[in-house]
Amino acid sequence: MNNELLKNYAKLFVQVGGNVQRGQTVVISCPIACAHFGRMVQDEAYDAGASEVLIDWVDDLSYRIWFLRSSDTVFSTYPQWKVDKLKDQDKKDAVYLQIDSSDPELLKDINLERIKKYRKASRGATKEHSRNLMTNAQRWSIIAIPSTSWAKKVFPHLAEEEAVENLWNLIIKAARADSDDPVADWIKHRNILAKRIEYLNNADFSKLRFSTGLGTDFTVGLVQNHIWVGGNVLDKHGTPFFPNMPTEEIFTMPDRNSCDGRVVASMPMFYSGNLIEDFEFTFKSGSVEKYDARIGKESLASILEIDEGASQLGEVALVPNSSPIGQMKTMFYNLLFDENAASHLALGKSYPFSVTGGEKLNDEELKALGGNYSLTHIDFMFGTSDMRVAGLKHDGSETVIMENGEFVI
Amino acid sequence: MNNELLKNYAKLFVQVGGNVQRGQTVVISCPIACAHFGRMVQDEAYDAGASEVLIDWVDDLSYRIWFLRSSDTVFSTYPQWKVDKLKDQDKKDAVYLQIDSSDPELLKDINLERIKKYRKASRGATKEHSRNLMTNAQRWSIIAIPSTSWAKKVFPHLAEEEAVENLWNLIIKAARADSDDPVADWIKHRNILAKRIEYLNNADFSKLRFSTGLGTDFTVGLVQNHIWVGGNVLDKHGTPFFPNMPTEEIFTMPDRNSCDGRVVASMPMFYSGNLIEDFEFTFKSGSVEKYDARIGKESLASILEIDEGASQLGEVALVPNSSPIGQMKTMFYNLLFDENAASHLALGKSYPFSVTGGEKLNDEELKALGGNYSLTHIDFMFGTSDMRVAGLKHDGSETVIMENGEFVI
Repeated sequence: MNNELLKNYAKLFVQVGGNVQRGQTVVISCPIACAHFGRMVQDEAYDAGASEVLIDWVDDLSYRIWFLRSSDTVFSTYPQWKVDKLKDQDKKDAVYLQIDSSDPELLKDINLERIKKYRKASRGATKEHSRNLMTNAQRWSIIAIPSTSWAKKVFPHLAEEEAVENLWNLIIKAARADSDDPVADWIKHRNILAKRIEYLNNADFSKLRFSTGLGTDFTVGLVQNHIWVGGNVLDKHGTPFFPNMPTEEIFTMPDRNSCDGRVVASMPMFYSGNLIEDFEFTFKSGSVEKYDARIGKESLASILEIDEGASQLGEVALVPNSSPIGQMKTMFYNLLFDENAASHLALGKSYPFSVTGGEKLNDEELKALGGNYSLTHIDFMFGTSDMRVAGLKHDGSETVIMENGEFVI
Repeated sequence: MNNELLKNYAKLFVQVGGNVQRGQTVVISCPIACAHFGRMVQDEAYDAGASEVLIDWVDDLSYRIWFLRSSDTVFSTYPQWKVDKLKDQDKKDAVYLQIDSSDPELLKDINLERIKKYRKASRGATKEHSRNLMTNAQRWSIIAIPSTSWAKKVFPHLAEEEAVENLWNLIIKAARADSDDPVADWIKHRNILAKRIEYLNNADFSKLRFSTGLGTDFTVGLVQNHIWVGGNVLDKHGTPFFPNMPTEEIFTMPDRNSCDGRVVASMPMFYSGNLIEDFEFTFKSGSVEKYDARIGKESLASILEIDEGASQLGEVALVPNSSPIGQMKTMFYNLLFDENAASHLALGKSYPFSVTGGEKLNDEELKALGGNYSLTHIDFMFGTSDMRVAGLKHDGSETVIMENGEFVI
């Protein structure tokens, strides 16, 4: 990938994604294999006026060795200093910029119990920080850049170098970083998402009904005073930012006790490096009543067992089939892209900002409204090119929102 | 460098350098450019029975950007969570393995005031941890591996690849990692150092007198009950380890109030990336009374200004001119090697374990014995191929210890 496009991508990440302000502390999470790009982002952040730009380096390979070879006792606790690091940064109102380049099979063959134990410990310990991000109180943004292993996973039949170049091309295109004025392009895109959101928020549907040729026949209730969200969001100071780049979805908060019917996934799901394929859920009164998978049923079970909230929904998201990423007809094995290829649902915690006043409620208060609490939040795709979505109002009237996978509103 | 020799080097580092024990926590500090070797060390440590092996990644280039571009206020504090991280690891009795591959010119052209301010903040905050290492209560070991920039500094006229290969060859040889049985070689070497130490501890000299053709004419008092140390040392449990690999020096504690005469350096010194060349000190009653340098006098001044102890001595070390590293006739621009090429002195903090019972004394008590306290500890070489060293006893008798740079005892 040429340096000029890389610089565009780094600039978008800093100026549009995280929207770094003068005097800001910035914390970049960067895989060591992407050091060149990480330092570019660091420089862009200083150019934007940051007072301090720190890089947390991550290395998938040694992380895997650590997971495979450490003593069992290691995984049941999370060091307090790591919690304090996040607290310290949160206190400084840091912007978090995460560069994701993970190997989709990183955690493959690692004992699931071990992963579950550690996830539980770390998520429990960093709950406050996660809440800061999930409520968008602090600005954060995630982008992806290709690793060799990721590129080979997406393009298994290409040579390494060609696979990486191909993946780069898709990513730069998906992130709208390849035009003469990427910042202007993002504003245009944001306005389209804003119009859909405005329509849906005004319509105030009480339920959505989904059907697809794959067999989905599903109705999901929306909580009262739910808010459709997408594109840029606002932090606690009202400063806009994009948590994900690219971003094509708009989403809101389902009522965790009012989801019924069959949902058939339209894309595989990755969980802790394990592939789950051709899976489906049947919901009754909000909870998963039955589930099945051709591959990875055990992984599916381990998700549902995390806690009570993991078998209820926390997000419902609409993405047109014609989205640039959907059109790439490529399985990215990476949620940042795959979730922007198709409409989806998420098991687990709901985003407090997707209901009026939600940021000010604690977990119990959110649950009382129909929101969901869990240590986890896992997306899965069910959108197809023949998906139909109808909105049902409290008076029983029905409006078609999407037909053949496209918005018709 | 072939993988077999690398594995030897990693094994020596883990088994001899840090002497990792079953059930141990190990913390590796590794430059991101040396990730392959870092993961080898991680695997060797698990092979030795470690319960958890963590890697702290460091990146010189982004550290330099941070130093150059952050706001001034950033450098006057050191985050508490970093202190707590060290405390947590120390509490677990972690072994610290540091892989050094820094660019000798990393901090070149960075404002010296800024570096001084940050060193002071960080050293003040991590004083307790430093003490754990300097008293050898906890095991630690440092080795070096070539970076391209370091190799080019050592071999400026060679192409990058050749320079790195050359430097690797010297390092593997200097570390005695190239034989069929490197561990046995280290034991043989340790025994030679142990004999010199035994002689000097029995002799119990009160002073050492140094003279060289370069103009050194210098007498240094040794504190009462000083201990000569070198080769392996023992941690608080009595477990042996080698803080530095390679190691050729033996050293003890000078009396910080009893150093007199002229010391002319025999090799350049690096301080915060700045070269100091052709420099000398004149000591009177222990303190630097005069100093000069053909290049870098300002850097020299900034060292002496760190605190009171920085202009007094904390270490005197003897290295034969014939040591393998001395024989390489190569300026490594890296203390780990250069300090093992020649006899040297250190400005700043003395090692508490180089006097009987020193580990149990606080800084003030050590100072009362003639030890030195400072936030810094900086070695400089003055050994030459014509150096003469004599030991003076309390009764006035004199014994020649080294002649023409070699031990004659």
